[in-house]
Amino acid sequence: MTEWFSVIPLGHSEAMHAIVIEDKKLAFREVPDPVPAEGEVVVDVTAAGVNRADVSQRQGFYPPPPGAPDYPGLECAGVISAVGPGVSGRHVGERVSALLAGGGYAQRVAVPAGQLLPVPTGLSLHEAAALPEVSCTVWSNVVDRDRLRKGETLLVHGGGSGIGTFAIQLGHALGATVVATARASKHDKLRELGADLVVDYTTDDFVAATKDFTGGRGADVVLDIVGAKYLSRNIDVLAPGGRITVIGFQGGRKAEVDLVELMAKRASLSSTSLRARPIPDKARIVAAVTRDVWPLVEAGAIKPIIHTTMPLSEAAEAHALMESSDHLGKILLLP
Amino acid sequence: MTEWFSVIPLGHSEAMHAIVIEDKKLAFREVPDPVPAEGEVVVDVTAAGVNRADVSQRQGFYPPPPGAPDYPGLECAGVISAVGPGVSGRHVGERVSALLAGGGYAQRVAVPAGQLLPVPTGLSLHEAAALPEVSCTVWSNVVDRDRLRKGETLLVHGGGSGIGTFAIQLGHALGATVVATARASKHDKLRELGADLVVDYTTDDFVAATKDFTGGRGADVVLDIVGAKYLSRNIDVLAPGGRITVIGFQGGRKAEVDLVELMAKRASLSSTSLRARPIPDKARIVAAVTRDVWPLVEAGAIKPIIHTTMPLSEAAEAHALMESSDHLGKILLLP
Repeated sequence: MTEWFSVIPLGHSEAMHAIVIEDKKLAFREVPDPVPAEGEVVVDVTAAGVNRADVSQRQGFYPPPPGAPDYPGLECAGVISAVGPGVSGRHVGERVSALLAGGGYAQRVAVPAGQLLPVPTGLSLHEAAALPEVSCTVWSNVVDRDRLRKGETLLVHGGGSGIGTFAIQLGHALGATVVATARASKHDKLRELGADLVVDYTTDDFVAATKDFTGGRGADVVLDIVGAKYLSRNIDVLAPGGRITVIGFQGGRKAEVDLVELMAKRASLSSTSLRARPIPDKARIVAAVTRDVWPLVEAGAIKPIIHTTMPLSEAAEAHALMESSDHLGKILLLP
Repeated sequence: MTEWFSVIPLGHSEAMHAIVIEDKKLAFREVPDPVPAEGEVVVDVTAAGVNRADVSQRQGFYPPPPGAPDYPGLECAGVISAVGPGVSGRHVGERVSALLAGGGYAQRVAVPAGQLLPVPTGLSLHEAAALPEVSCTVWSNVVDRDRLRKGETLLVHGGGSGIGTFAIQLGHALGATVVATARASKHDKLRELGADLVVDYTTDDFVAATKDFTGGRGADVVLDIVGAKYLSRNIDVLAPGGRITVIGFQGGRKAEVDLVELMAKRASLSSTSLRARPIPDKARIVAAVTRDVWPLVEAGAIKPIIHTTMPLSEAAEAHALMESSDHLGKILLLP
């Protein structure tokens, strides 16, 4: 990026490279530079995180919300290169990470100032780029709404994903018992991160395994990325008063629910997307994550788990890797 | 009751009358007197509330939890007649109301001391008997879990029920906009209680009516007693970030849910039963209701709405009235 920047004669005010979606494929193109609107800053992107939601967006299932950049990318870290009107306390040259509504797969991105997070002390910009989306997603669901408490059991499906590796560490740091589902090849690493039990979903029943491990009680909070295919088993595995959050639909979107079973468990079922939340709501979450989660990162209780970094121009290969589910942790793109 | 009591020679320590369930019918029978266990008191029942859950119990769908009296009745008010071991701060002769796990359809009932509430200043024991189940049910769902806030919209299905008349008043007192569904004959009364909009569900679509009334936004919290039949429309009517609580299943228990629609609204769907909660959890709810709701009752912002009182021996007629849905507010039984 530095080389590229140095050959633009007018500051970087006219054009940049970004990944755009053309016919459900990713393409590396020259696009106009972002201009910071009221309340926004522009970040020169050092590294951008890849999320499964970006794959859905590429496939046409997850359009960006109104006003968001229309190319993919929900998080990044980098250096502020412009400060828009109405922004105070931010300056050009400041190192930041950011939660984005889109546009991270680019050399520069405009972002509301309330969605900036500091770079945790001791972390590189690459490492900081691996945290905003997973930390805000997991915190807003598991802590803010579902109020996971010390001594409760958290079941994390897809324990090897970026979300999964973060959720395991956060649950462990909060004093919960953590159960994760993942392929066997990932088990050792997930135990290192704090999983108390790892279940190979390709061979074992996570309901029986979780109930057995918890003396019959089950999981108090379930963080699910599978959706319809797991819904009835997620209700089965719940402890009384349990809460299910569905944040992905790899196993379909429509399923029958037995409300009396929900009642018998006093259960709740939620599904959320961080991306579509109103900007003030995102700012509230970002502030809470900075306050409550960043100290755990700085203390080493939560580490950014990075599977690999790839050049921005190879975003298509990054998506293929994510779709293979062979990764463990985050995939980062470097503009 | 007083007459009956006076002819028992040994204090009231041997037998009493209660309503028992025989072959899915209610029968007025002589049964053994309750004995207070560790942590319990016995209440001489002046009035007992009838709840739709009692109808379900009679029909065989809602068995009492382990340890609960096996005849129906989830709330009462009366006078303490015995104090069991391990109870402090309670005395014989004290006027109380009580949240019960069962056994209210009787002359006396044993209840954990943590489930006693004071009789709000200015209320008769009849009026106090109309409040425990509805106040604890509505508060635990709408306030404690679903966090209804001032300025939000609460949609109450079955606005004319005991739960409904209480929820309308509580929502109004908390500064929410209240929409209720009910038959047309009940509309005037529900408006008096604080409903901002009442929808005749027999002729009008509550989704369209609620969205129209709220400028397209919809309901932030839905308190539902219908279940499966309303589920997809309850999701339709939700505002972003909305919460649905299902506490009844008059319209069935199983329905398809589209998780992506839930996600698009950032919605949650919960179902709970107060009765099956652990005793410490009930005590927490009772304490919070005493602290937060009783002052609203004592200030006149929430009134007990009593449709009629009937002798305990006419419990079968009381159930027939409840099943007709012709009542508006609570039906009370007087032992």
